[in-house]
Amino acid sequence: MAFGWIDEQADARRRAGLVRTLRPRPADSPLLDLASNDYLGLARHPEVTGAAAAAARAWGGGSTGSRLVTGTTELHTELERELAEFCGFEAALVFSSGYAANLAAVTALAPHGTLVVSDAGNHASLIDGCRLARGSTQVVPHADPEAVRKALATHEGPAVLVSDTVFSVDGDAAPLGEFAAVCRERGAGLVVDDAHGLGVLGPGGRGAARAAGLAGAADVVVTVTLSKSLGSQGGAVLGPARVVDHLVNAARTFIFDTGLAPAAAGAALAALRLLRREPGRAARAREVAAELHARLTAAGLEAVRPDAAVVSVRAPSPEGAVRWAADCRAAGLAVGCFRPPSVPDGVSRLRLTARGDLSGDQIERAVRVIGETRP
Amino acid sequence: MAFGWIDEQADARRRAGLVRTLRPRPADSPLLDLASNDYLGLARHPEVTGAAAAAARAWGGGSTGSRLVTGTTELHTELERELAEFCGFEAALVFSSGYAANLAAVTALAPHGTLVVSDAGNHASLIDGCRLARGSTQVVPHADPEAVRKALATHEGPAVLVSDTVFSVDGDAAPLGEFAAVCRERGAGLVVDDAHGLGVLGPGGRGAARAAGLAGAADVVVTVTLSKSLGSQGGAVLGPARVVDHLVNAARTFIFDTGLAPAAAGAALAALRLLRREPGRAARAREVAAELHARLTAAGLEAVRPDAAVVSVRAPSPEGAVRWAADCRAAGLAVGCFRPPSVPDGVSRLRLTARGDLSGDQIERAVRVIGETRP
Ligand SMILES: Cc1ncc(COP(=O)(O)O)c(C=O)c1O
Ligand SMILES: Cc1ncc(COP(=O)(O)O)c(C=O)c1O
Repeated sequence: MAFGWIDEQADARRRAGLVRTLRPRPADSPLLDLASNDYLGLARHPEVTGAAAAAARAWGGGSTGSRLVTGTTELHTELERELAEFCGFEAALVFSSGYAANLAAVTALAPHGTLVVSDAGNHASLIDGCRLARGSTQVVPHADPEAVRKALATHEGPAVLVSDTVFSVDGDAAPLGEFAAVCRERGAGLVVDDAHGLGVLGPGGRGAARAAGLAGAADVVVTVTLSKSLGSQGGAVLGPARVVDHLVNAARTFIFDTGLAPAAAGAALAALRLLRREPGRAARAREVAAELHARLTAAGLEAVRPDAAVVSVRAPSPEGAVRWAADCRAAGLAVGCFRPPSVPDGVSRLRLTARGDLSGDQIERAVRVIGETRP
Repeated sequence: MAFGWIDEQADARRRAGLVRTLRPRPADSPLLDLASNDYLGLARHPEVTGAAAAAARAWGGGSTGSRLVTGTTELHTELERELAEFCGFEAALVFSSGYAANLAAVTALAPHGTLVVSDAGNHASLIDGCRLARGSTQVVPHADPEAVRKALATHEGPAVLVSDTVFSVDGDAAPLGEFAAVCRERGAGLVVDDAHGLGVLGPGGRGAARAAGLAGAADVVVTVTLSKSLGSQGGAVLGPARVVDHLVNAARTFIFDTGLAPAAAGAALAALRLLRREPGRAARAREVAAELHARLTAAGLEAVRPDAAVVSVRAPSPEGAVRWAADCRAAGLAVGCFRPPSVPDGVSRLRLTARGDLSGDQIERAVRVIGETRP
């Protein structure tokens, strides 16, 4: 029978304790949220939701076509201009998601004959970009500039290094300065995904590339998502204007995808303007992360020191992680629970996000619940 | 220099007359729109934009996380339930785009050892799905059930046929009934992309699968987009509940992507309810297409007989197509212009969309402008 093998896979998943189910949430969840990627607490900010509403009314429910046909509004262009300027790049190009932006950047910048060096901890969307690219990919050990140097040395011709700036599972940062240095030794391009850095790292949340002195460089391309710190949906690629022009002409997830919905563009633009007006929000998210880590460690839990606003806590097993997260939820706390195959190293963990708008009391309560429910 | 090859490619593109540039549109464009995919004219409908606005205010600017973490709201579930019911399937799963839905369906339903038979006219997102899938792909000539039969006969083990229902460039329909029959002979699954069929084909716009008597079958999976007839953004996979459960557990563009923004889910749900209340909208889009085709043909233009709401008109060359579309625009008419590499056969054309809300006068005016600007 067609799709008959699905049931066997489902059984295997059940036996391994790895079944995933959806838990729809109501509009006003009573849970304390340390699970979302709404790092600055802007997704529900009235300026952001108001801008989403106004954009939908002014521009329509959707953008109605590919960015190359009817899907580019003046609102998209405005968002691109302000994003590029904020992050310190010449140009920006907005996509329907961060996933699509990553597929675009990697595939369009790694044509046939290109070597793509890819960090072992990279996000699924970068990995899929590598798989789709016509170039050949070499995966290198996590956060290891020396391994990158060796990989680049094996290849004549165009090469790019592809890496997250902040790794989504453990929240650790890539050694960006060293990555850029080894790339420059070999004339290789650097493509980094700042999904978890924008709004959190760098002066006023201008991102990891800016923090590392790499913003605006001719050999650096940054991808971001509008769905985390900016509380919306969508993604963007930031870089030299010639790279952005190339993407307009060559990136399949740009050419063959409907443009981002106006409401999402409007929400992201409002969040960006808010962040520019209130630059302290970025530093506050990092402070919350440091405090969360210190308190968890003091409580005897094994947490990774955060480089941005993600705090990862090790769990004993997939089942243990699931039970732990469920017990937290029962005690009023939403936490992320990462298990295989969503973790590169097979280690299950709770994943906490240090939202910049958490109060000291809320941090304390979160740590208490996590400690008390520990498996 | 890093990315140095980009300039050479840009030069070659310029020489070939294939440079693409963005044309941002204002909120109230004076152009008569035959270029967007807003087939039912719902993107600007006040019920749709009002629902987008209300959803953003109630649920936030973004969904804040993966559908498996915080990104599933009760609004997503409601949309999934109503979409599945409308199209006649057991279950539905919503994605951030139609592109992401197609990547998910093809990759998750074609693991290692699977043969994927792919129609030569398929959309870029299905093609990328085939490239990402672990199964092996065999491309067959366009709309050719006999070729599919032969391809399936070469393989033992799981197989799927992947096809658009309505091909986006020429607007012709796939022979769905015959495709299903050859799949069933061999126990192969059928995965069809109804991006251009939903809202246009079938009773009340219930889609091509329903029109072909295939809705709800155990061996049929349909993908749709929320960005065309439903005037929003997003995509969905419709099928048996076991297939949807499998996607929740296995599809990377579901697991590792932020959930669809609430405003987009709200807009699509409102459009769906409107269509259910006013089922004549679907038939009207088909009527407009037939009228457009008849008048273009009467004016001596080479247009493809439309099976849905896309009418394709041949142009003599890429440059000729670009100039034609520009002359139309100068005369107040927006039309799509498809050139290599966006066309599978290298033939450039104007692409017209037969919006169901076009009046007889508007159709007449469009045909007059297209005829007068003919290269
Ligand atoms: C590192 C990283 N890159 C890219 C993405 C994809 O972005 P989006 O969800 O906006 O598609 C995510 C998360 O979703 C991510 O964590
Ligand atoms: C046939 C087809 N499938 C899928 C898509 C992708 O859908 P979306 O634009 O919603 O991502 C499109 C157009 O964009 C399409 O024409």
